[in-house]
Amino acid sequence: MYEQQTVAQTPLRNGIRVTIWNEYIHERTDPKVAAVYPRGIHEALAAGIGPYGFRIRTATLDQPEHGLTKEVLTGTDVLIWWGHLAHERVSDEIVNRIQARVLDGMGLIVLHSGHRSKIFQKLMGTTCDLKWREDAERERLWVVDPAHPITEGIGESFVVEPEEMYGEFFEIPAPEQLVFISWFQGGEVFRSGCAYERGRGKIFYFRPGHEAYPTYYNKTVLKVIANAVRWAASPHGAKPTFGNTPPLEPMLRTFRQSRPPGIEFRMQ
Amino acid sequence: MYEQQTVAQTPLRNGIRVTIWNEYIHERTDPKVAAVYPRGIHEALAAGIGPYGFRIRTATLDQPEHGLTKEVLTGTDVLIWWGHLAHERVSDEIVNRIQARVLDGMGLIVLHSGHRSKIFQKLMGTTCDLKWREDAERERLWVVDPAHPITEGIGESFVVEPEEMYGEFFEIPAPEQLVFISWFQGGEVFRSGCAYERGRGKIFYFRPGHEAYPTYYNKTVLKVIANAVRWAASPHGAKPTFGNTPPLEPMLRTFRQSRPPGIEFRMQ
Amino acid sequence: MYEQQTVAQTPLRNGIRVTIWNEYIHERTDPKVAAVYPRGIHEALAAGIGPYGFRIRTATLDQPEHGLTKEVLTGTDVLIWWGHLAHERVSDEIVNRIQARVLDGMGLIVLHSGHRSKIFQKLMGTTCDLKWREDAERERLWVVDPAHPITEGIGESFVVEPEEMYGEFFEIPAPEQLVFISWFQGGEVFRSGCAYERGRGKIFYFRPGHEAYPTYYNKTVLKVIANAVRWAASPHGAKPTFGNTPPLEPMLRTFRQSRPPGIEFRMQ
Amino acid sequence: MYEQQTVAQTPLRNGIRVTIWNEYIHERTDPKVAAVYPRGIHEALAAGIGPYGFRIRTATLDQPEHGLTKEVLTGTDVLIWWGHLAHERVSDEIVNRIQARVLDGMGLIVLHSGHRSKIFQKLMGTTCDLKWREDAERERLWVVDPAHPITEGIGESFVVEPEEMYGEFFEIPAPEQLVFISWFQGGEVFRSGCAYERGRGKIFYFRPGHEAYPTYYNKTVLKVIANAVRWAASPHGAKPTFGNTPPLEPMLRTFRQSRPPGIEFRMQ
Repeated sequence: MYEQQTVAQTPLRNGIRVTIWNEYIHERTDPKVAAVYPRGIHEALAAGIGPYGFRIRTATLDQPEHGLTKEVLTGTDVLIWWGHLAHERVSDEIVNRIQARVLDGMGLIVLHSGHRSKIFQKLMGTTCDLKWREDAERERLWVVDPAHPITEGIGESFVVEPEEMYGEFFEIPAPEQLVFISWFQGGEVFRSGCAYERGRGKIFYFRPGHEAYPTYYNKTVLKVIANAVRWAASPHGAKPTFGNTPPLEPMLRTFRQSRPPGIEFRMQ
Repeated sequence: MYEQQTVAQTPLRNGIRVTIWNEYIHERTDPKVAAVYPRGIHEALAAGIGPYGFRIRTATLDQPEHGLTKEVLTGTDVLIWWGHLAHERVSDEIVNRIQARVLDGMGLIVLHSGHRSKIFQKLMGTTCDLKWREDAERERLWVVDPAHPITEGIGESFVVEPEEMYGEFFEIPAPEQLVFISWFQGGEVFRSGCAYERGRGKIFYFRPGHEAYPTYYNKTVLKVIANAVRWAASPHGAKPTFGNTPPLEPMLRTFRQSRPPGIEFRMQ
Repeated sequence: MYEQQTVAQTPLRNGIRVTIWNEYIHERTDPKVAAVYPRGIHEALAAGIGPYGFRIRTATLDQPEHGLTKEVLTGTDVLIWWGHLAHERVSDEIVNRIQARVLDGMGLIVLHSGHRSKIFQKLMGTTCDLKWREDAERERLWVVDPAHPITEGIGESFVVEPEEMYGEFFEIPAPEQLVFISWFQGGEVFRSGCAYERGRGKIFYFRPGHEAYPTYYNKTVLKVIANAVRWAASPHGAKPTFGNTPPLEPMLRTFRQSRPPGIEFRMQ
Repeated sequence: MYEQQTVAQTPLRNGIRVTIWNEYIHERTDPKVAAVYPRGIHEALAAGIGPYGFRIRTATLDQPEHGLTKEVLTGTDVLIWWGHLAHERVSDEIVNRIQARVLDGMGLIVLHSGHRSKIFQKLMGTTCDLKWREDAERERLWVVDPAHPITEGIGESFVVEPEEMYGEFFEIPAPEQLVFISWFQGGEVFRSGCAYERGRGKIFYFRPGHEAYPTYYNKTVLKVIANAVRWAASPHGAKPTFGNTPPLEPMLRTFRQSRPPGIEFRMQ
């Protein structure tokens, strides 16, 4: 048996830096929503996952650069995104900046109606469209990937009620890891927890979260989001280099001496 | 034993409609390239896969709407794409049109330097960047998914020489089916045959094909492209519907009677 | 535009050779089952998919070698499997033979309670356990991969009723292509259409099919099975070679001259 | 901004319990191998990854129950496996025990010639065969999934030399996450880092490691193995339940009243 020596943990583990972005419109314009999230969905989320020990800041649409300056994104390990009414008002420049930061290693967690956000559509390459119904029904989320860290402490299934229904077909690339499938009272199913990698970054789409329902006070929902933050902030590899590159191995010239001149390949 | 009755094959099988798109610039401006592809890469491809029985047409950048009108795309089962110098000159409107058609079921085969085309980047959601070296070296492509229809008749590996090197990291989503991996003389490897599904459409990226080398006269390369056309044109499902939808099952009202009023969920 | 020449289709397309295997016990011992499938599930399946033009034979547990001699398997493009009561009575030798034939390119379609068959467990490497309830409830299968050939002509969802419930967690490897997800009346979901590749072979697990319910007379269920047969019989690549192999490229001896003698690597 | 409260880390993080299994035959029978690994490959690995802070024990073939009693496996978070000559001498009972423990959440890291071990074959469901050549050549491993935690601190590629060659086709299920691809001097490529989930467990196959070469003193190889241990020990979900289960939702009896009597479904 060998003497054990501790190798330093990455600083990340001692304080994942989370930025919670919310378009923050419903809560200031619709009394019904304001009653549920009086300080905004972003603040409810911050309060809900704060106890997990993250270093949290928030950002909203109406801030300069939507609150997502280069400095903020560089200092963000995981970005959480909630939007619904104003996807088109998010500037393309900021969307491109977020995409670049995800490819560079930042985690991204897209919640509920964020499925049609510019950033999610851009990273998925599809419409991300789906069926929906706002009828305060019962949703049950089933764990279908119990090896995934995001399922820690969740049980085999859990209920969120009342909820908006989202139904298939959900026009996304097939999830690289499908973590949850939802059952809805009205007869639909939905791929509700979808994990992806893009570049050096990790992306998780998580379905629950309607603005008119108190989903973001549900302890299990919050635990999933906290687990997703940890997963999305897990280590990644070196920054790739791109472009013209010299050979790494000595190339036998004999290969290339056999190169036939292009003229011989003319089409008859 | 039952009497067998033949069910009609889909018309597709009797004539897959292929459109080969080429930016067609190198061949008209660079004598070295013109010597290899005097009538253009698109015509070399058309001649090469023509014997497989497809109904082929071609389209180029300088045509109105780049030759990709709505009528052309609607009448295309599989689109083959070659571009290099002029990715930025392809109009966003046409790119969006192609994306929509792919999601609606058209197959797309992206060749070689098409990795940085707008349409491939848009569908992948990443930069699709890579390493490269133009040094007329030897490439060997290995089949790593011999269950895939695209590998029919290809053998275990095949050589393309001379070729431009493309090396990892290739910034794409992990292929849903990784069909070929390339070995290069200079020490690099590359995921050279990458299959995806998006919406109802199928996408295949195939690496070989430099404009200065006679790759598109290579019989094995042409066979892969023909196999890819057949795969990309294989049947798909019904057109999905999106948006607001009524329940399919009678919902027990008792569920919703238990809905807690929002006020109770106010944040403390 | 090029003159088109037709390349010969593979013989497979003109007559896929299907063997339907059934343990054939329920139907001969349980009057309730006999009332539904008087000539056996295998004959109901054969009658149901026969019109699609396959060359069908059947095999049952009580035949010599369970009806799956080397000759039969060699002459089978796609094997369909139904079993329930007698998984343990299938000989290991035959199971190994089927596995080898799948790796060599034969398609395999496993139905319903075949999830716990030796051959499916062996190919999956897991228990393939699940939750179940026999309560004649309603199942709705949703297409979640409309690009997949198996979904052709199926619509967005379809109902099978009455059905036995199968619920998650289904202990299988994550499907390489998840084609259907089932919704059940009692609150469960299930990954009901699961596609895999193993070696040169293709495997499809399809959930519906209880012996006491008339599932295999359902036209949509039969269409899915017929589509699956076609997909599982689609072309594949060359037979791989394994074992010791000489280098394909000339190796620079200078590499190996730098090999450090093992003694220098002794552990301190 | 919210006051942060620390949530307790899982005990695992403070000491992952690793068991390193080695058949331990080469090193005691072949002087050439003994010169490289005088105390056995297991001890070289233990020394090499010890500094990462794991709680390490070792086990070998000749111990009672191969050193893998129920107590040992229950107390193991991650099992590392090296075998070559004596795969057939590992008892089926122990193999089944390991499989069950993996499905229950234990991580498994299979090294090099362990590709043909009973446990890897059983979990993969395939032969796991490949091409090989023992010719002390140069291997370069390329990172093709830089978002994966296993690639932390590895760079874009790294060289192991001298090494035995392993070449495609590697008859495994397509990796769920393909992390490394190897380039070999002689012209081959290989999927060298393959990640899977099975049940609640995580599996990583890592290619390098010939008994006659000092691979397991290579610092980068050791870092990959240590990273893989951490990944394989990452949290997972609740233990699934299987078998007969009552409905979770009240089922409308009207569904079942419409159940047609079986007799009506008799085949005409």
